[in-house]
Order: sequence, then C-alpha cells, then structure tokens
Amino acid sequence: MEVNSLRDRIGRVIWGQDARFGSAFDQIMIAVILVSIFGLSISTVPGLPAWTDPLLNALDVIVLLLFTTEYLLRLWTARRPLRYARSFWGVVDLLAILPFWLTLGGNFQALRSLRLLRILRIGKLARHVAALDRITRTFQLIKEELIVFGFLALIVMFISAVGIYEFEHDAQPEAFASIPHALWFVVVTLTTVGYGDVYPITAGGRFFTFFILIIGLGVIAVPTGLISSGLSRAREEEKERKKMKSSERDEKGDG
Amino acid sequence: MEVNSLRDRIGRVIWGQDARFGSAFDQIMIAVILVSIFGLSISTVPGLPAWTDPLLNALDVIVLLLFTTEYLLRLWTARRPLRYARSFWGVVDLLAILPFWLTLGGNFQALRSLRLLRILRIGKLARHVAALDRITRTFQLIKEELIVFGFLALIVMFISAVGIYEFEHDAQPEAFASIPHALWFVVVTLTTVGYGDVYPITAGGRFFTFFILIIGLGVIAVPTGLISSGLSRAREEEKERKKMKSSERDEKGDG
Amino acid sequence: MEVNSLRDRIGRVIWGQDARFGSAFDQIMIAVILVSIFGLSISTVPGLPAWTDPLLNALDVIVLLLFTTEYLLRLWTARRPLRYARSFWGVVDLLAILPFWLTLGGNFQALRSLRLLRILRIGKLARHVAALDRITRTFQLIKEELIVFGFLALIVMFISAVGIYEFEHDAQPEAFASIPHALWFVVVTLTTVGYGDVYPITAGGRFFTFFILIIGLGVIAVPTGLISSGLSRAREEEKERKKMKSSERDEKGDG
Amino acid sequence: MEVNSLRDRIGRVIWGQDARFGSAFDQIMIAVILVSIFGLSISTVPGLPAWTDPLLNALDVIVLLLFTTEYLLRLWTARRPLRYARSFWGVVDLLAILPFWLTLGGNFQALRSLRLLRILRIGKLARHVAALDRITRTFQLIKEELIVFGFLALIVMFISAVGIYEFEHDAQPEAFASIPHALWFVVVTLTTVGYGDVYPITAGGRFFTFFILIIGLGVIAVPTGLISSGLSRAREEEKERKKMKSSERDEKGDG
Repeated sequence: MEVNSLRDRIGRVIWGQDARFGSAFDQIMIAVILVSIFGLSISTVPGLPAWTDPLLNALDVIVLLLFTTEYLLRLWTARRPLRYARSFWGVVDLLAILPFWLTLGGNFQALRSLRLLRILRIGKLARHVAALDRITRTFQLIKEELIVFGFLALIVMFISAVGIYEFEHDAQPEAFASIPHALWFVVVTLTTVGYGDVYPITAGGRFFTFFILIIGLGVIAVPTGLISSGLSRAREEEKERKKMKSSERDEKGDG
Repeated sequence: MEVNSLRDRIGRVIWGQDARFGSAFDQIMIAVILVSIFGLSISTVPGLPAWTDPLLNALDVIVLLLFTTEYLLRLWTARRPLRYARSFWGVVDLLAILPFWLTLGGNFQALRSLRLLRILRIGKLARHVAALDRITRTFQLIKEELIVFGFLALIVMFISAVGIYEFEHDAQPEAFASIPHALWFVVVTLTTVGYGDVYPITAGGRFFTFFILIIGLGVIAVPTGLISSGLSRAREEEKERKKMKSSERDEKGDG
Repeated sequence: MEVNSLRDRIGRVIWGQDARFGSAFDQIMIAVILVSIFGLSISTVPGLPAWTDPLLNALDVIVLLLFTTEYLLRLWTARRPLRYARSFWGVVDLLAILPFWLTLGGNFQALRSLRLLRILRIGKLARHVAALDRITRTFQLIKEELIVFGFLALIVMFISAVGIYEFEHDAQPEAFASIPHALWFVVVTLTTVGYGDVYPITAGGRFFTFFILIIGLGVIAVPTGLISSGLSRAREEEKERKKMKSSERDEKGDG
Repeated sequence: MEVNSLRDRIGRVIWGQDARFGSAFDQIMIAVILVSIFGLSISTVPGLPAWTDPLLNALDVIVLLLFTTEYLLRLWTARRPLRYARSFWGVVDLLAILPFWLTLGGNFQALRSLRLLRILRIGKLARHVAALDRITRTFQLIKEELIVFGFLALIVMFISAVGIYEFEHDAQPEAFASIPHALWFVVVTLTTVGYGDVYPITAGGRFFTFFILIIGLGVIAVPTGLISSGLSRAREEEKERKKMKSSERDEKGDG
C-alpha cells in the first residue's frame, strides 16, 4: 500500500501531473540538461588547466546518475512500462545514458563515438516546451507550399550551379572543380552568408551571380514569409476556437 | 483497332489523364530526371575512381533511351503531333535528347558544349508541379510594382557604384578599377552576401557604404515583402472563388 | 501664330500632356538617359581597345546635344520659364549639361570632377516614374516610426562599437584602432554583410558579437517590416478612395 | 518665496512639464549627449593632430559640467530627491559624472576603465524618446513566443555546433578546435554574416552546413516576423483604445 502510494506520488511529479512539484521537476531537469551540455562543450576546449579534468568528470558522473535515476523511475511509475520504453522519448532517454554504462565495461575504443549520443539528451528539452505544438501545427498547415518552394529552390540552385560552373571552371579550376563544388558556392551565395572562400572572378560569372541572386533571394524569401503568416494563422485559429468554446459555455450557462 | 486502343491508353497515361497510372508515370519521370541530374553532377567531379566511368556512361545511355522513348511516344499519341513538336515543352524534350544522338555520329568537338543542353531536362520538372500556377499568378498580380522597385533598385545600385568608385578608385585602383567593377561591389554589398573580395578601406568609402546599406536594404526588402503579401492575396482569392462556386452549387441544389 | 501653335504642340509633348506622343517622348528620354549612363560606365573600364574612344566620345556629344535641346525646348515652352529654371528639376536639367559646355571653353583641369555631375541625369528618371508617389506617401505614413527606430539602431550600433572596441582593441590594435573603426565592424556585422576584413578573435569579443547580433537583427528587421506593412496600408487607402469616388459618382448618377 | 518659485520653474523645465521650454531643454540635452559621444569616439582615433587634444579635453570638461549641473538641479527640484537618486535614471545620471570627479582626485590608474561608464550617458537618450513605450509593450505581447523561439534557436545552434565539430575537427583542428569554437562558426553562419574566418572544407561539413542553414534560417526568420506582426498589433490596439475613448466622450457629450 505504502509503496504504491509512493509510486503514484513520484509518478505524478515525474509525468507532470502534480500541481505543486510537477513543473518544478521539469525546470530542474532542464537545468541539469543545460549544465550537462555546458560541461560537454567545455570538455572539448584544448589547453584546459589540469584541475578541470576531475571536475568535468565528476559533473559527467553526477548528471548521468541523475538521468539514470530518472529513467528507472519513469520505467517504474509508467502505467505501461514497455510502451514507454519503446516510445520515442523512452528510446532517447535510454540512448542518453547507454554509452556511459557501456563504456564502464571497458570497451574504450568505441567511447568517443558513443559519447556523441549524449547530444540526444537535448531532445528531452523539446518534451518540456508546450508551445512547440503550435509550431508543429503551423508546419502542417503550410507543408504543401513549403515542399513546392523547397523543390523550386533546389531547381534554382542546381541550374545556378551548372551555370556558374560553366562560367568559372576554366578561370578557377580548383574552387569550381565540379558541379558539387559549384553547388557549395550557390548555397553560400543564395543564403547571403558569403564566407569568401569561393567567389566569381570573371565578368560573366559575376553577372550570372547577380542574376541568380535576384531570382534566388525571391525564392528563398517566400518560405520564411510563409512560416510567419502560417504562425499568425495558427494563432488566430487558436483564438477563434477559444472564443467558440467560451461562447458555447456562455450559451449553456444562459440555458 | 488494337493499335489505336493501345495508343489511346498510352496517351492517357503519358498526358496525365489516366486516373490510375497517370500520376505514377509523372513520378517515375521526375525520379529519372533527378537521377540523370545527379549523374551529370557526379561526372564532373575530378579524381573519381576508374570503375565509376562505365557506370556513369551506362546511366547516361539508359536515361537518354528513356527520354527518347518518351519523346517518340508523345509524338505518336499527341492529337496534333506537329503542334506538340513546336510547343515549348516539345522543344525542351527534343533539345534534352538531341545532343546525345548528334554526338553519336562523331562530331566529338562540339560534344562538351552540347551536353550542357541536357540541363533543360530539369525544365520538365516544372510541368509536373501544379502549384507553380499560383506562383505565376502572384507574379502577374504584383508585376507592375516589382518593375517599379526593380528599376528603383537598379538606379540606387548605379548611383552607389559611381559614388564608391569616386571614393575608392584612388586607394584601390585594382579592386575598384572601373564603374562596372564598383557595381560588382555594390551587388555583393546590398544583397548582404559580402564575400570579402572587395570592400572599402577609406573612411569616406566606409561611410558611403554605410549610407547605401541603409537606403539599399530598404529598397531590396520591399520586393520580397511584396512577393509574400502577393502570395497570401492569391491564396485568399482562390479560397473566395471556391466559396462562390460551392455557394452557387448550393443555390442550384436548393432550386 | 504658326510659331505659337508649334510651341503649344511641342510643349504638350514635352510636358507629357499630349495623349499620342507624350508617353513616347518620355520613353525615348529614359532610353537616352540609360544609354548615356551605360556609356559613362563603360568609359571608366581600363584597357579598352583604341577604337572605342571616338565612339564613346561621339555618344557623349550626341546625348548632351539631346539633353541641351530638351532643356532649351522646356525653357521655351514652359508657361513660366523662370519658375522652371529655378525648380528642382530645372536645376538638375541644367547641371546635367553645364559641365560639358563649361569644359568646352578650355578649363580642362576641372573636367573630371565636373563630369560627375552628369550622374544627376539619372534623377530625371524619377520624374518619369509615376508609382514613386505611392512610395513617397508610404514613407510619410511611417516617417515617425522610422525616425524612432533609426535612432534606436544608431544607439545600439554605438554601444556595440564601444563594447567591441574594449574587447578587441588590445588583441587587434590595427583592425579595432578606434571607436570609429569599431563602428565600421558593427555596420558590416549588423547588416549581415560580413566582408571578413574585420572580425573578433577573442572569446569575449565573439560572445559580445553574438549578443549584439541578437539585439541588432531585431532592431534592423523592424524598419523593413514597417516599410512593407506601410506600403500595403497605402495601397488599401488608395483602393478605398477609389471606391468612395465611384460610389459618389453612382449616387450622383442615381440622383 | 522667490527661491521656491525659481525652483518650481526650473523643476517644470527639467522634468518636462513646462509647455514652452520643457521640450527645448530635452532637445538641448540630447544634442549635448550626442556631442559628448562624438567627442568620446573621436578621442580614440590614433594619430590625431596635437591641437585636437586640448579641444577634446575642453569639450569633455564642458559636457561634464553641464551634466553635473543637470544632476544637481534634478536633486534640488525633485519632489523626493532621495527617490530620484535611487531610481534607475538617477543612478545612470550619477554614474555618467562620477568617473570624471573621482579621477580629478588623482587615482589615474583606474581612469581608463572608469571612463567607460560615460557610455551610460547614452541611456539618457532613451528617457527622451516617448515612442519606446510602444516597443516595450510589443515585446511584452510577444514575450512568451520570443522565449520559446529563442530557446529553439539555441538548441538548433548547439546541435549544429556539435555536428560541425564532428565533421570539421579533424580537417581543421585549429578553426574547429572545440565545441565553443564551432558555436562561433554556427553564429556567424546562421545570422548569414559569414566573415570568412571559419568555413567548412570537407564535403560532409559543407553538406551539414547547407542542412543547418535550411533549418536555421527558418528558426531565425520567425522571431523577426513576430516582432513586426507584434508591433502592428500594438498599433491597432492603440487605435481602438483611442476610438473607444473618443466614442465614450461623444456619448457623454450627447447625454
């Protein structure tokens, strides 16, 4: 009896159904994830002082013990433990802790590549952000148009790559060595990033670049505009739905 | 009789009138075009292993036989074969296969430049994308405004080029050798690409660049805003037209 | 009598009041201006073949004779010649031809700087574009907000310049030699041009750059959004005014 | 009696309640602040002629005496001097003059870092711009959404940094030395600044950059769109509130 009531209580907190501690638990876990990400980033910096090594290792162990505890508690408190273990977030939770426990057993060669899986912890953050639903809905609203424009953008980019390859290949046989090389130039140009590692030097290539920029900026500007207008549409729909519900309630209350 | 019914059947599939196989045929042809484009891109990469050569050649021949078959079937099944052959897409279909058959006959010198025509195959993709109609309509809606702003942008760019030429020509006689050279700088700057191959070094030139960026970003931001608002206008018009049609049908049904 | 009627006729054509030839005259003058600009640009290109020199000179003389003829005809046909001569466009028309006639008299030293005034010819184009009115009206509508945001942008830019100067001055004493130098970095960064001639190399400077990019992109994105929304407001107002006029006419017609 | 009436008069001018001189005082103080900022910027330029030194010093002293006078007058005329001295603007006003008076007493070593505090003077400008209220309100309206998208952007950036670090670390061990280094690349890329100090050189890194640009531009475009739409919402709300007030007044007037 007592164990069951404890399980219920922990379950309500972990699964966010507890009014008091549910959101506090979420916020603590977000903080832990952020700290773990920060530690992972710092540990790659070369030339750190020697005393940071045990500190970062300790941080790593503590975070992983916390994650492991959370995973086991979720398994214990879930109504259908197997269903959770097989769900998307269940797999993410497992993959975030697996490499640590596997490498404890000795297989140190595989350590480095497995540690990368820890990045998946960041995916846990998404579960804690409710507003992501609206964004997901927006993308479903404008999915069709985004596909068309994405396709159009790819066509424009490929034609641009072939064109600039013809203009610049002879003048810069290294920078524009092939059409895939030219595609890299087109990506860097049409997104207006312009690193400066590749740029046209012939008059024809420069004129062609000007031409594809005019076309390309239009094609790329439309999807971003679509996302903005889609989001505002999703917000208005939400408002109207709320209004309908409240007016229905009002009518019921009147009747 | 049998040949005619076969011709009708194939015609319905090829011209997209067949409910069952029409869209399947379209999707297969899109896939073939994409594979052919991918092969064309890869074949320009230098230092490929020797065994890829016959593979890419085989891919080339297969794709071109498919395109040729499609072209002949279209000629055979079209109601007015000559009209198709003279239409825009008929010419594109022919130009996409012509260089291959011409270079078979030996004229190898012209091979390289003729192969470029194959890029036109990508144009076939446009025929398969129905949503391009809405985009075309949008551009017709805002055509007048786009012309005005395009003109305005060109004027701003030219005045900027003359100005920066005066400021930087003496300090950098190579990078700003002439007004067309300065125009290249203006294009790279106002589109915010900024490769870094040309940039002002004098105080006057830098101040002038700041000034034209303020003006220029405004002029360039407006057309992209016009496209976005134009597209949403086109979408609303489409909705209203559908509503009108359905309400007309309702009225007919009521009467 | 005959001279007067000729003057009236030419005046109607030149001042755009003639239904038949008024717009044709405008279009021809635009073409002449564009040709003259093109010639001016080409003439600065170094290493042109010798035979282009007399050609470009001839083009120059022809264009200037045309402009002079236009100016004299405007003076002759204007209702108040003095008022035209003193008006903005009258001065532009005069300044566009003055340097040519002045340098004929020998003062060749001043030639180069005076030739620059010819760029003002391009201003004539603005007179021929009717749609500029709407743009002017838009900017009057959002003038107040643009000033506020312009000011805000300048403040953000200056604070950013002082900040990055403090971070990078010691590490890069040449690139970030002074606050005006740092301002150039801020301009290049916040407009996302990013030539690559100056960039932070210290960890603090990079973090600060990230920080000002977040703030700055927001501040700079708002004015462009204001222009777009302002233009659509101007368009709607125009539509409503037209509707009102036509409904007023309908009412009058009914009465 | 006379002193009190003088205090009242000066107070009304300084605190902007005087109809005649209140806005004039504001405009003069803005001009003084701008001049002081200009002087501060110029004084950092290396290689200035010797005669500018006493000039800039004199400007410095005059501006600081003006600021000190303003501060003392504010203290004298404020209804609750202590409350003003403790308020945000009171502290800013004090910090803007403190370093000057402190360094007079001799502690020259601390001079340079304390002079930086003078940048806070620019904050005074914000008090004089009334339209900042609307902007503040807009940000409160879209605060929640901005936080979500800001968080989303940070997640996308961090995942991108880890990814590009894995792709490019071996090929460019200096430019992509650690995940924080990779984060700098991601910031420069996703804001489309693209200085060119770091860029991918491996095929995998380039493809990954293309991929994160597609995702990242969408994530970054949304907040700027949110600000624009939020501002127009704030403007409409303001209009409606004004209409309501005037219609209420009309009703009162009718009754």
